[in-house]
Amino acid sequence: MADEVQSWVERIIAADRRAIARAMSAVENGEPVGREILQGLFPKAGRAYIIGVTGSPGAGKSTLVEKLAAEYRRESKRVGIVAVDPTSPFSGGAILGDRIRMQSLFGDEGVYIRSMATRGHLGGLALAAHDVVTVLDAAGCDVVLVETVGVGQDEVEIARHADVTVLLLVPGMGDDIQTFKAGVMEIADLYVVNKSDRPGAERVEQEVAAMLALSPRTNGWKPAIVKTVATRGEGLRELRAALDQFHAFGEQSSLRRTRRREQWRWRLEEIVRQRLFERALERLPEDALEAHAAAVAEHRRDPYSAADELISEFFLPGS
Amino acid sequence: MADEVQSWVERIIAADRRAIARAMSAVENGEPVGREILQGLFPKAGRAYIIGVTGSPGAGKSTLVEKLAAEYRRESKRVGIVAVDPTSPFSGGAILGDRIRMQSLFGDEGVYIRSMATRGHLGGLALAAHDVVTVLDAAGCDVVLVETVGVGQDEVEIARHADVTVLLLVPGMGDDIQTFKAGVMEIADLYVVNKSDRPGAERVEQEVAAMLALSPRTNGWKPAIVKTVATRGEGLRELRAALDQFHAFGEQSSLRRTRRREQWRWRLEEIVRQRLFERALERLPEDALEAHAAAVAEHRRDPYSAADELISEFFLPGS
Repeated sequence: MADEVQSWVERIIAADRRAIARAMSAVENGEPVGREILQGLFPKAGRAYIIGVTGSPGAGKSTLVEKLAAEYRRESKRVGIVAVDPTSPFSGGAILGDRIRMQSLFGDEGVYIRSMATRGHLGGLALAAHDVVTVLDAAGCDVVLVETVGVGQDEVEIARHADVTVLLLVPGMGDDIQTFKAGVMEIADLYVVNKSDRPGAERVEQEVAAMLALSPRTNGWKPAIVKTVATRGEGLRELRAALDQFHAFGEQSSLRRTRRREQWRWRLEEIVRQRLFERALERLPEDALEAHAAAVAEHRRDPYSAADELISEFFLPGS
Repeated sequence: MADEVQSWVERIIAADRRAIARAMSAVENGEPVGREILQGLFPKAGRAYIIGVTGSPGAGKSTLVEKLAAEYRRESKRVGIVAVDPTSPFSGGAILGDRIRMQSLFGDEGVYIRSMATRGHLGGLALAAHDVVTVLDAAGCDVVLVETVGVGQDEVEIARHADVTVLLLVPGMGDDIQTFKAGVMEIADLYVVNKSDRPGAERVEQEVAAMLALSPRTNGWKPAIVKTVATRGEGLRELRAALDQFHAFGEQSSLRRTRRREQWRWRLEEIVRQRLFERALERLPEDALEAHAAAVAEHRRDPYSAADELISEFFLPGS
């Protein structure tokens, strides 16, 4: 490792805020130096409790994350927050709003906040988000909260790649909105009924309980359902307690280890896929791709034989 | 091509509903025979007008698509509908609801409806959706309506890979919800303010107009803004007229051709990526991947050097 990268890595481990911020940008943007940094940081990572928080837009994720961070801060735990924001504000600006809401945490030296855009992560948003988490983990955060909208496939991957997945539900949002990407409802470890002072909270709780009764988990964990009113801080201690309980359960059972191994198996496959394609693309001349695309667009040839021809010609000759 | 596939292809081109339905399932599920069928169908495809309709959950996409289909049916045009449904119903069941709402179209021999789940499309949802569109296109549909939620990256890709992208907005949904994946707002060719009998419709229209004035399109097209109340069929003729206008513009200018060429360039790259990785994975022993994942999960080694080792060992020896 170059001396410069080495000293950068050391500053991150020593929790230098500037070094951390620069490293998060480097890994998020896929800069070549980001990879070197991650390699240097990796032996120091793996200690943080990574908490994925997901739910529909408007469910109150940011507020919950902010209050939960404050809970951990009362015990001087160091907290990282990664907000994966898939939205482009149309009127009003949700992004700015979220960041303003989290303002109570700014100026606190024990909190590190990073907003990630979802644009331009061709290499995979879930991988990029996890790389940012790795930086915060190696920098000594005890807890890293990862906030995502539970709609797109990428966002679901991010939520699943935490140590614990918390799903936020809200009463009275209407059926159209209270829906999730297939599979999200089934994977959460903890369910939070937020805005539980609204009518319908009981019903949401009962529905989750009914779903859990119908399809109990095979991993030995009985998911908790916690009611909160995040804006007023209600239920946050209960949520914190449930998170601690799950953490302890994961350590005692083999759940945490098994899950991390599965996650790394998936990520490793993704990294291989990405790197392989990067290297392969270098061999593919732009004009060959263009020429084939033009022929296909005019339906003079079909895309599958065109792809096979490109593969045979440039990647796997003789196959 | 095998005789069986050949006769299947012929039946699709002759608009045999059963053959079409089976082909859509085959391509959606990535069955090997699906590829052969697509190759057989490809020379017949490329004639349909592919209309992407996107917007937040609850914006009224399904209703709009249903009414728009009815508009085209009045002129006996054959219509395909592909609804890409990323949601898992939690309470109430949005999926069932949508399909029930489109019931007015069932029994109409000139309409083909396909709901696609977003689960399990590791090869790329956008590609799979386009393959389904190709089947409907080759089967002689004059128009194919592709409905997606404008939130995840996959959904955005689907919307962009149409001939025309229609974005649905609704007044009064609140800032949290009226947000889109970065980039969606900027790519639409037509903007629909649906539920325009609600207060705030004017404001939405003005905001879109202001956005368009700030960043005019470079392709020569001035996006139309159409107000509708889809449930009552209001504004549907105006929308249809705007779609016709865009279609004519695309033919006269080089826009349609340029866009299709770009889309195929992207898809071809995706197909190459997918095929290359499929072939590569065959060479990667499961136990090697597992062993590396275990070492990484325990932070005994970093994932990047592990990935490089796997690549050098199994894919690109000597590189």
